[in-house]
Amino acid sequence: MGKLYVIGIGPGSIENMTLRAKEAIEKSDIIVGYTKYVDLIKTLAKGKEIFSTGMKGEEERCKEALRLSKDNIVSIISTGDAGIYGMAGLILELKDGEDVEVIPGITASSAAASVLGAPIMHDNCNISLSDLMTPYELIKKRIEMAAEGDFVISLYNPKSKGRPHYLRESLETIKKYRAGNTPVAVVKHALRDGQDVKLFNLDSFDDSQVDMMCIVIIGNSQSYIKQGEFITPRGYKL
Amino acid sequence: MGKLYVIGIGPGSIENMTLRAKEAIEKSDIIVGYTKYVDLIKTLAKGKEIFSTGMKGEEERCKEALRLSKDNIVSIISTGDAGIYGMAGLILELKDGEDVEVIPGITASSAAASVLGAPIMHDNCNISLSDLMTPYELIKKRIEMAAEGDFVISLYNPKSKGRPHYLRESLETIKKYRAGNTPVAVVKHALRDGQDVKLFNLDSFDDSQVDMMCIVIIGNSQSYIKQGEFITPRGYKL
Repeated sequence: MGKLYVIGIGPGSIENMTLRAKEAIEKSDIIVGYTKYVDLIKTLAKGKEIFSTGMKGEEERCKEALRLSKDNIVSIISTGDAGIYGMAGLILELKDGEDVEVIPGITASSAAASVLGAPIMHDNCNISLSDLMTPYELIKKRIEMAAEGDFVISLYNPKSKGRPHYLRESLETIKKYRAGNTPVAVVKHALRDGQDVKLFNLDSFDDSQVDMMCIVIIGNSQSYIKQGEFITPRGYKL
Repeated sequence: MGKLYVIGIGPGSIENMTLRAKEAIEKSDIIVGYTKYVDLIKTLAKGKEIFSTGMKGEEERCKEALRLSKDNIVSIISTGDAGIYGMAGLILELKDGEDVEVIPGITASSAAASVLGAPIMHDNCNISLSDLMTPYELIKKRIEMAAEGDFVISLYNPKSKGRPHYLRESLETIKKYRAGNTPVAVVKHALRDGQDVKLFNLDSFDDSQVDMMCIVIIGNSQSYIKQGEFITPRGYKL
């Protein structure tokens, strides 16, 4: 009798993984994941059978993980939280009687926020700018609603070669509702090797360094920068 | 020379804490936190000096943590993620030269989602219904915008004695935009002792068991229940 753990490994460094995720990987016979993500946990995966595929191989990986889990202890890994733009949904959509357990991890916006200070202390949205499975019209509507509702906004998959202008257009929309000095941060490789942080505001924003490995966080109307730290107050009267 | 760790301990069980959070607590001389939360990590805090205060003592705790951190290694703890409705913001607002490091944790909506299946697989919002520091008019506007934008919505602090009707009113607003069979879940004490899960839809929702220890998750227009699991598809064509 096998088992499938659907694991969010967090930002990618072992120390920012939960004890539960680490233990599940350690007791697994087989690790399934996107090649680059399996690489992030290679010290834990050492000696185990690995089934990895490239980008866009999600469905193949999930089907193989479910198949293997009938007779083996299997971990399928996502970076961040498996339950936020990760593999948990596809696994449960495809599941047919297998024993599946979802193990949450630190999602990318939380990881990026911790590096910046405290930008998402209040009501907030996560929006992916990827249009592979979501029409751009719906993405634009969500940006508009999030901007009008004064949410702190974290953008996942902010820019790719096929849609270089979505990020700029999103910030133009947000600027209709927020002041030009509203903080905007770009965090690349948060809490893993190669971490890089850039602070802007809506007026000064420059998207030239942004790619798919970045998270972009836009403050709400109360957010500010204090000595290099991005803070959104919760509302305490100090 | 001291140091202050601002730690998100996650849902409250040690196994769902990150290794980094656990290690920071272990190497601290003093633990600061809300009494009930310090209790959740008492095995780690054993033998250490504790400074704990009741609910609403946040500012006092933060000032004391900063003061103590000048000469000691101190951890101030929040449940969930310190950076989402936790202590990171207040600490950084009050900080004046102290050495502060924010350590992220699994936020309550991620923990609740992992128990339910995969409800927040797509664009999503976290909204707190607490009006202690946010006017109800702004909360209502955010609910409206999140509903219109078809976000998966996670409600923090969904109900308290002082505002028993906010949750019902919020769901009424969401119902203007979504079908009556949209899944709604209530998770109490996610991933800790006493965990309890209730599944409803917008039509059948009953708020009588909801309190401040719960997270309420409302699906988007594509969400559904499959064999007791709450799934929001990411959009794969299966």
